[in-house]
Amino acid sequence: MNQGWANARGHDPLAGIRDDIRNLPTENIAELALKAASLSGVIPLWYGEGDLVTPQFIRDAAKAALDQGMTFYVPDMRGLPALTSALSDYQTRLHGVDIPVQRSTVTPSGMHAVLLALELIVDKGDEVIFIEPQWPNIRSAIQLVGGVPVPFGLDFRDGDWRLDLERLMASCTSRTRAIFLPTPSNPAGWVASVEENKALLEFSRRTGIWILSDEVYARLYFDGEVAPSMLQIAEDGDRVLAINSFSKAWAMTGWRIGWLTHPSSVAGALGGMTQYMNSGTAGFIQAGAAAALTQGEPLVREIRERCRVGRDLAYEKLAPLPQTEFGAPPKGGMYVFFALKGEDDAKAACRHILESARVGLAPGHLFGEASKRFLRVCICRDAAQLSEAFDRIAKVLNA
Amino acid sequence: MNQGWANARGHDPLAGIRDDIRNLPTENIAELALKAASLSGVIPLWYGEGDLVTPQFIRDAAKAALDQGMTFYVPDMRGLPALTSALSDYQTRLHGVDIPVQRSTVTPSGMHAVLLALELIVDKGDEVIFIEPQWPNIRSAIQLVGGVPVPFGLDFRDGDWRLDLERLMASCTSRTRAIFLPTPSNPAGWVASVEENKALLEFSRRTGIWILSDEVYARLYFDGEVAPSMLQIAEDGDRVLAINSFSKAWAMTGWRIGWLTHPSSVAGALGGMTQYMNSGTAGFIQAGAAAALTQGEPLVREIRERCRVGRDLAYEKLAPLPQTEFGAPPKGGMYVFFALKGEDDAKAACRHILESARVGLAPGHLFGEASKRFLRVCICRDAAQLSEAFDRIAKVLNA
Repeated sequence: MNQGWANARGHDPLAGIRDDIRNLPTENIAELALKAASLSGVIPLWYGEGDLVTPQFIRDAAKAALDQGMTFYVPDMRGLPALTSALSDYQTRLHGVDIPVQRSTVTPSGMHAVLLALELIVDKGDEVIFIEPQWPNIRSAIQLVGGVPVPFGLDFRDGDWRLDLERLMASCTSRTRAIFLPTPSNPAGWVASVEENKALLEFSRRTGIWILSDEVYARLYFDGEVAPSMLQIAEDGDRVLAINSFSKAWAMTGWRIGWLTHPSSVAGALGGMTQYMNSGTAGFIQAGAAAALTQGEPLVREIRERCRVGRDLAYEKLAPLPQTEFGAPPKGGMYVFFALKGEDDAKAACRHILESARVGLAPGHLFGEASKRFLRVCICRDAAQLSEAFDRIAKVLNA
Repeated sequence: MNQGWANARGHDPLAGIRDDIRNLPTENIAELALKAASLSGVIPLWYGEGDLVTPQFIRDAAKAALDQGMTFYVPDMRGLPALTSALSDYQTRLHGVDIPVQRSTVTPSGMHAVLLALELIVDKGDEVIFIEPQWPNIRSAIQLVGGVPVPFGLDFRDGDWRLDLERLMASCTSRTRAIFLPTPSNPAGWVASVEENKALLEFSRRTGIWILSDEVYARLYFDGEVAPSMLQIAEDGDRVLAINSFSKAWAMTGWRIGWLTHPSSVAGALGGMTQYMNSGTAGFIQAGAAAALTQGEPLVREIRERCRVGRDLAYEKLAPLPQTEFGAPPKGGMYVFFALKGEDDAKAACRHILESARVGLAPGHLFGEASKRFLRVCICRDAAQLSEAFDRIAKVLNA
């Protein structure tokens, strides 16, 4: 039986853990914010989180479920019937196509919907192309499941972010398992057009490459009720997995609940995976989410309007400054993304603005090579606070 | 660029998903219970779930957190400070050794603590030895992360379940990444002795093989306040990951919260992984769990007593029957595990008992080869209900 144990304890404290995990990036937005905890009076615009407490009607629904004793396992791992049925109604109404109950699986967070989608299809060494600039968690999640993250940059051209579809498709190979498409994108506010979605869907049908459509910001779209969605054009059999979350459009970041919309053929597999990954989401949280869906349209409109006002304030107060470089206003999402002329180091710029203006922004290098000059501002906040933050930044830039 | 797309859409509805996922077992306890939904008057003893609603003081803590507006991201992905600090105090008190805050990471369920532990250390093709009889989710979780599950059976010998430690260690090879050790075990009620834990820890130190100590039932132990735990003997640097959950000992199955106790050296890695797997557990759920830890000792004693009474009832009413085969009473856990003489097909026996006695039991073949003759009974229930269930079973067996 002797094997000459290669992996016995040594002096490396991380010996014995997976290489993919050892090599996960350690720099992220949270780390930046934690470092600044000692500074007082900071206006925090670095996280992707609004400033509204979850409205009372959603909290009341969760509290009522607790009062009613909903503290046992939810028998269907894929979701509480009240929620999966609400998801079916909601998506059918929103997208104008029938999306039956068996096409949605509830997940303990939108982040977990990403993980679930990746675990479903990505085997060790499979490549996943993701559109940059990109929220950094996506690259890390691909790496965590053993996949190979392959960035594909949007071009910042003629004052706007653009996707070179032909080049994207040409960059796919037989090793490409999926394309991760954030629309509206975090952080750039880029939104895939109906035509772009159609071309990608057609490409997926031809190649078998999956489309992971991150639609977490779909309702925070400034030209209509919902951004163009893969779900509007995909059929049940298509290789489309749409990621969604209650965090942003319903002010529920701290609830950790989202969902995945998928072909009905994989519902059974996703139910099994859910069982073995976390055995489902708390029933009383699902009860809150069901209330959000069925009674939350005024809330979604309020949050969208909050973002629109924040966006317009940034374009009114910061875009005209000679020191800043703004593209076209974002079409969706909860961010404004801009650069400082003559400053290629976004991290240094963020540090300067943090220390001098006491405003917390997120540096673009975290979102990839294509955006290393840019700064991300969360605009889903109280207008007076945003106004104050932008004034402080302007003052520092003009000093 | 042409690649002759090998994976384009075909007629196989599961084409395009990972082989490990395609091959996940589809038979499980939940499926059995769902099939019986049409039968009336069934006493459900198949799940690993007690019948107590989560006590009011825990629900009140979560509701108070909701009322206070705790609906935002918890900044530390590894846990709410109130909970990680309570976990440190609790474990330090329980095990009599200092277990500082940086050694625990909160997870959205005990199941997810298993997944997190496996994702930390198991690479594609790595083998994980797990002790059978075993709760079936463990084999599936190992498979889901790309590992190779290798069962190692306890022996049912001289009327008790026994671990052949020498044979277990001899069966490890350089491909063995970890040994998954459930103690108290679900379903067999087997408990590792202090000496067995010490021998395994010494083996781990010599070989670098990780010990995944599943201590979810550690407080439901009938010979003391807590079953012998790896945490009592392991040092911070040891390759020990202890899995725990609030589900069983605090009647919180539906809350989906657990924790992993780990070397402090991997705290940073686990924080990153948590960020990319689900970005943490809801703050108000963590507030409920903190109340459970700080005020829940009477509750734990009540649940343990409930299990002891249930166990004794089974040994009083079923063990003496000539048709049944019982080992020594379980030392811990919330199950009684017994066989029917002359019946090797546990599934058939369960179906018979379900249809004739209207009592739902879980068949042992789901827990592995070593226990395919056995039936699992959940005993963490109201004594009058258990008494009625056992009388019904006795009547059917005597018919």
